[in-house]
Amino acid sequence: MSNSKLYNIAVVGATGAVGQKMLETLAKKDFPIGQLKLLSSSRSAGTKIKYKDEIYTVEEATAESFEGIDIALFSAGGSVSKKLAPEAVKKGAVVVDNTSAFRMDENVPLVVPEVNEEDIKQHKGIIANPNCSTIQMVAALKPLQEQYGLKRVIVSTYQAVSGAGAEAVEELKDQAQAFLAGEDLTAHLLPVKGEAKHYPIAFNALPQIDVFQENGYTFEEMKMINETKKILHADALNVAATCVRLPFFTSHAESVYVEVNTETSVRSLQNLLSEAPGITLADDPDNQIYPTPLGAAGKSDVFVGRIRRDLDYHNGYHMWIVSDNLLKGAAWNSVQIAESLINHNWL
Amino acid sequence: MSNSKLYNIAVVGATGAVGQKMLETLAKKDFPIGQLKLLSSSRSAGTKIKYKDEIYTVEEATAESFEGIDIALFSAGGSVSKKLAPEAVKKGAVVVDNTSAFRMDENVPLVVPEVNEEDIKQHKGIIANPNCSTIQMVAALKPLQEQYGLKRVIVSTYQAVSGAGAEAVEELKDQAQAFLAGEDLTAHLLPVKGEAKHYPIAFNALPQIDVFQENGYTFEEMKMINETKKILHADALNVAATCVRLPFFTSHAESVYVEVNTETSVRSLQNLLSEAPGITLADDPDNQIYPTPLGAAGKSDVFVGRIRRDLDYHNGYHMWIVSDNLLKGAAWNSVQIAESLINHNWL
Repeated sequence: MSNSKLYNIAVVGATGAVGQKMLETLAKKDFPIGQLKLLSSSRSAGTKIKYKDEIYTVEEATAESFEGIDIALFSAGGSVSKKLAPEAVKKGAVVVDNTSAFRMDENVPLVVPEVNEEDIKQHKGIIANPNCSTIQMVAALKPLQEQYGLKRVIVSTYQAVSGAGAEAVEELKDQAQAFLAGEDLTAHLLPVKGEAKHYPIAFNALPQIDVFQENGYTFEEMKMINETKKILHADALNVAATCVRLPFFTSHAESVYVEVNTETSVRSLQNLLSEAPGITLADDPDNQIYPTPLGAAGKSDVFVGRIRRDLDYHNGYHMWIVSDNLLKGAAWNSVQIAESLINHNWL
Repeated sequence: MSNSKLYNIAVVGATGAVGQKMLETLAKKDFPIGQLKLLSSSRSAGTKIKYKDEIYTVEEATAESFEGIDIALFSAGGSVSKKLAPEAVKKGAVVVDNTSAFRMDENVPLVVPEVNEEDIKQHKGIIANPNCSTIQMVAALKPLQEQYGLKRVIVSTYQAVSGAGAEAVEELKDQAQAFLAGEDLTAHLLPVKGEAKHYPIAFNALPQIDVFQENGYTFEEMKMINETKKILHADALNVAATCVRLPFFTSHAESVYVEVNTETSVRSLQNLLSEAPGITLADDPDNQIYPTPLGAAGKSDVFVGRIRRDLDYHNGYHMWIVSDNLLKGAAWNSVQIAESLINHNWL
């Protein structure tokens, strides 16, 4: 931090999976907090949560909760953000919103600090945190875009259940235990809470994340496509996505095909990414070095490996991108945006 | 079966995961077997195995084992096939080989009966069964190739541990149990038996199947690329693959991008595939119908869903292909080849 001022911070959705990681990240980064306010739905209000050495009682989030708050980190679902983020802004807070509520709003910057930090300056009170699967991909693509230009991206994802919340984590645990005990699997939640059909996730793969759109793509896939273009300021970029939920707890992995505009090489891409902010290169096939979801769990960086040239398209490359979906994909990216706000005096 | 003749069958690797499925499949299809000979390494010789109502004792496979055998189904590893398949042929048997030993040999047909059954006619004693991940993809691509022509294929796989054998299945079970009990995970086998490094597969994803080649691709990826071109008789087809091992037991899934040469539509592709041999269309997003690995387990067909048009490339389509890797990916395809041999008098 570049100054010694303290800031009043509200965390909306403090009892959720991402909210918990936000608090861990704020503590770990020793964020300069004056007052800390933990907010949630009425259902979770009253929960006690420890932050550093102090116990906080979670309060129900209302329009009045944001009086005196400088930065409000929202991660309590799109409907809560839609209702309360504008109220927080009215009270003078800047909102960093981790839901999809405002991401494609043209008045709301959608930010991955390593990629488009300057966009934060344009904010009118709300800054959106992109979808987890988008963040790690654009972090790896940005250096390629700057150096070579991007023509086309095709991604197939391998996404952890924690992206669907703490209940999904429990569902995977319960189903895995039942399966190993030879019992029948029952599914109540995944692929999408509230949808008509549920499929077991334990020892399975579900090619549906979020609801289907009219064009046959899921909302998760359209988020990756649209958010990538917005963050990279590249409306003409061709992006395609297939998003798949898998039976692991933490980190999303992505098999990415990318076509660049000008000549490069595997070695050049490795060098470029090894020096890029927020990226750790893990790419040494001779020694079986490549990123894995378990290996990336608990770490802030985006890990890139398996970089290789397409065998037919000279400017086409394949790579494997892995990052902790709750950290860089959510909590850490939100806290980074909050850091940018105060470091650059953009509040 | 089109005649009432009986055939003497040898199964080499009878105690392995695929060998077991071969026996199940032969029994289920009521294959016209005269003498049945179960063969294995010396280590497993002596094992008792039940086929239909009879108990067989597994014998050590040697050059002499194939005397009087009409069809020998090999699935005991590449080195066994390299050594013993030519011996079996000398004794007058036709070999259906499920290893990679002869797949790219120009004198050996590489066959998926729904795709290139006629190639069997060219055999000189050995017919190769393709790699599991290749079989299900070409089965789905063949109707598109015939109707529209294929320009480009990019596949990212989601592969079950049973593709790495019975030991890998045990490793996933043991690790999953340890993880759920809060114990540390130890890895001894995956991603590749005999390689220097091992990573846990439980609640993880490993972007390495088989060993790395000099070009940065794994052998599994190169198998998919080269075998696809050979089976489809399409040397000029652009194929790219990323192969990933995942924590489920049965069925491989594939996220496939395919570019065809002439105009079509999602509806046309659905109609085409719904009538294609060996394919079950499972593609109804409105009702959350799509294939999953658990759903395909134990079934012979290749399941295709999530068919949708690329948002930028008019002739580009994305689809999700799932099949039981031990059945259509191995045992069932081998038995299908054996059926073709006798039905067409191609022995």
